[in-house]
Amino acid sequence: MPDKVPTGQLPAEQQPQSGTRRKFLRDSAALAGTSLAGGGLLGASTAVAAEPLPIPDSNKYLGRGVVSVPYGKPSKFEADILRRNVEWLTPDTIASISFSPIQDMHGIITPGGLHFERYHGGCPDVDPDKHLLVLHGKVERPLKLTRDDLRRFPQHTAIHFLECPANGGMEWKGVQMDSIQFTHGMLSCSEWTGVKLSTLMEAAGVDPDASWMLAEGGDASAMTRSLPLPGAKDQYGKDIPDGTELLKDAMVVYAQNGEPLRPEQGHPIRLLIPGMEANVSVKWLRRLKFGDKPWVHREENSRYTELMPDGKARQFSFYQEGNSVITYPCPDKRIKEPGFQEIRGLAWSGRGRITHVDVSVDGGKNWREAKLMEPVLSKALTRFTIPWEWHGEEALIVSRAVDETGYVQPTLTQLREARGTNNIYHKNSQQVWRVMPDGEVKNVQIVNV
Amino acid sequence: MPDKVPTGQLPAEQQPQSGTRRKFLRDSAALAGTSLAGGGLLGASTAVAAEPLPIPDSNKYLGRGVVSVPYGKPSKFEADILRRNVEWLTPDTIASISFSPIQDMHGIITPGGLHFERYHGGCPDVDPDKHLLVLHGKVERPLKLTRDDLRRFPQHTAIHFLECPANGGMEWKGVQMDSIQFTHGMLSCSEWTGVKLSTLMEAAGVDPDASWMLAEGGDASAMTRSLPLPGAKDQYGKDIPDGTELLKDAMVVYAQNGEPLRPEQGHPIRLLIPGMEANVSVKWLRRLKFGDKPWVHREENSRYTELMPDGKARQFSFYQEGNSVITYPCPDKRIKEPGFQEIRGLAWSGRGRITHVDVSVDGGKNWREAKLMEPVLSKALTRFTIPWEWHGEEALIVSRAVDETGYVQPTLTQLREARGTNNIYHKNSQQVWRVMPDGEVKNVQIVNV
Repeated sequence: MPDKVPTGQLPAEQQPQSGTRRKFLRDSAALAGTSLAGGGLLGASTAVAAEPLPIPDSNKYLGRGVVSVPYGKPSKFEADILRRNVEWLTPDTIASISFSPIQDMHGIITPGGLHFERYHGGCPDVDPDKHLLVLHGKVERPLKLTRDDLRRFPQHTAIHFLECPANGGMEWKGVQMDSIQFTHGMLSCSEWTGVKLSTLMEAAGVDPDASWMLAEGGDASAMTRSLPLPGAKDQYGKDIPDGTELLKDAMVVYAQNGEPLRPEQGHPIRLLIPGMEANVSVKWLRRLKFGDKPWVHREENSRYTELMPDGKARQFSFYQEGNSVITYPCPDKRIKEPGFQEIRGLAWSGRGRITHVDVSVDGGKNWREAKLMEPVLSKALTRFTIPWEWHGEEALIVSRAVDETGYVQPTLTQLREARGTNNIYHKNSQQVWRVMPDGEVKNVQIVNV
Repeated sequence: MPDKVPTGQLPAEQQPQSGTRRKFLRDSAALAGTSLAGGGLLGASTAVAAEPLPIPDSNKYLGRGVVSVPYGKPSKFEADILRRNVEWLTPDTIASISFSPIQDMHGIITPGGLHFERYHGGCPDVDPDKHLLVLHGKVERPLKLTRDDLRRFPQHTAIHFLECPANGGMEWKGVQMDSIQFTHGMLSCSEWTGVKLSTLMEAAGVDPDASWMLAEGGDASAMTRSLPLPGAKDQYGKDIPDGTELLKDAMVVYAQNGEPLRPEQGHPIRLLIPGMEANVSVKWLRRLKFGDKPWVHREENSRYTELMPDGKARQFSFYQEGNSVITYPCPDKRIKEPGFQEIRGLAWSGRGRITHVDVSVDGGKNWREAKLMEPVLSKALTRFTIPWEWHGEEALIVSRAVDETGYVQPTLTQLREARGTNNIYHKNSQQVWRVMPDGEVKNVQIVNV
């Protein structure tokens, strides 16, 4: 083993030299003259000689043993990757929102510890052995089910995003938060496991003429929403998106990323309506009532409606339409060095799969198609990437998602033309970042893109 | 809102009645006479009237606000879902193993906190800003890369399982642990993000005649393995599985389930060789050296070789072959009530996708095909389910996986015929559980299945 230096016998010149780290980065981040995708991967300069090998400190001491942390947690060196809130956004933290640090996230799965939070009356601690779910109203067999009961039903698992409809709401009128965590962080994606709503409805024998379902949570706000089943019309008899699509995917879930639902996501059980605004996926779910018209509770009346330019309210606007955002570079993750950059981002649609994402670096004049990372799943986050050579010029970078229905993510101008400026919900318009010559990135709302 | 009881104004008869919980379960778990898949979903009996509605305690107090837990953790009621170790298995916990509680897991993603652990010299705390990865040996451009450098390369994300080749090793000779956590828990599955090894090799300009790669970890054991590249032969010049397949999927990863790699999985960077025994996915990766023959380090010599019936050692047996196990019912999760059961389990193969899984409830005489949960991904865990009506009879339940190469998971008899009984690695044989009339489940090695 001529090249292996045994632990504990390091010549002095092989001690880690922290002062030289920046040099390593500047030199080797270079990868001069390679012909990788994107052309000249990391810019100019030469590669360094690799001898003597740096031996890390961690080679020199015994680490901790197994199950010293029987439930693991992140490295102490990652302590700044946290959910955050905006103090001025709500009067208190009990009825408020926290944002996922999507600038620091990779792939499509959000770890449970970083899933965004939205409480209307705080997050309770619920004993799963005492909690019951009731199915009642227009049903043949009213049911009371424990979590153990639910676990006996045929199981369904799927990866889906959840997004608060107020995501980006501060930006409607022109606030320009210089942080993707606060412009887009009410967005997470998990693997969910539970029982299909259709299975539970069959078990309870829901009347064929029931066209609405009321979901109520076991929290202090008794969070309550009316949800349309197939054939649903609104309280005035007018057509709305009925529940045919909803029933295809809806679940009562008890697990998230393989483990029991986290308290913040409604432990022990929640409703999950993939594709719709997250508040209808009622947490700490305690009952589902079946009827033939909407109950018009406060959360579909004073909240979660949209004031349109004509002064009327848009109601039951459940779906999170096609959306995307560039997560690198972004205000939270500036460019450190010119040369090869991989533009990365997330795309998602409440209507199904993302079919493609275009990226522009000139504010929308020219577009190139990004690569989508497999698997591309319905109503799940989809990761996209595209290579970019950047040489210090000012640039306006923006992404535009298209979903399987053919829906194209609008510009902010287009969105305002349709819905005015008195809205805080469903802001899914293209997000433009301005890259400055020094690599800093600013949030800009380019209305005429 | 005639059906809604405002919080704080509960009539006495609507207080939660914990004494009646068992009755609810017994009655409503029933779902009498429904015609759900599996026929009579949860057995016999009648449904209960749902009035008065149970109002949970959690409706009656304000919960905690957002970011009171800026990095979330599981509910206090789930405190028994933990990694565990076996005290007699190793002399200490520094060079040891912990097992994932797969009896309590759902879907295919393992949350970071429950990923199994395997240390050869303990788990170090590595500062990601000081750690370097060196590529050297038969390369045109030796490279030293920080994690920041690695993040600039084109990114790749994929969901893959990791399994210790010693998983089930205690069972080779006949130990019958009555716990799936200990028979199969050295198994986890995550979404991994990093850089493809092939991209880094191109950047370093690895010589075309380099046929082996040495990977060394930055831990106290300096964990070191030789890995075959395309064209590799063993140290005697004999053919072995060469690295063509390996290179297709291999990565240097810095993220796991969307966040930085956990310390237990090699933070800040590790090698990831999907499909191969987990120890070759060297953690705290500090160097990759390229050469033209294996280095034959201790971990491919005194460890991770297999003593065959003829007294010779099987070496470089990297692949985790097709495998499966029933996770419910299992010794850790007995059957509580007769009637409808959904048999659930996990299947996986280091060679690619699972194509189907068969399940038997009579010890392998008759088989039925299970349903596979989407997405079915290459070298990832795959969840399978199949309905089963159980009426208190003794039963021998067993699953059998088939992968895309046509490989069929063997019985223990078949495995022993091929590899003898002096082995502790790569035990991928069918696992038979005996279901007792009272619903208890025992581990049995039915050799003649």
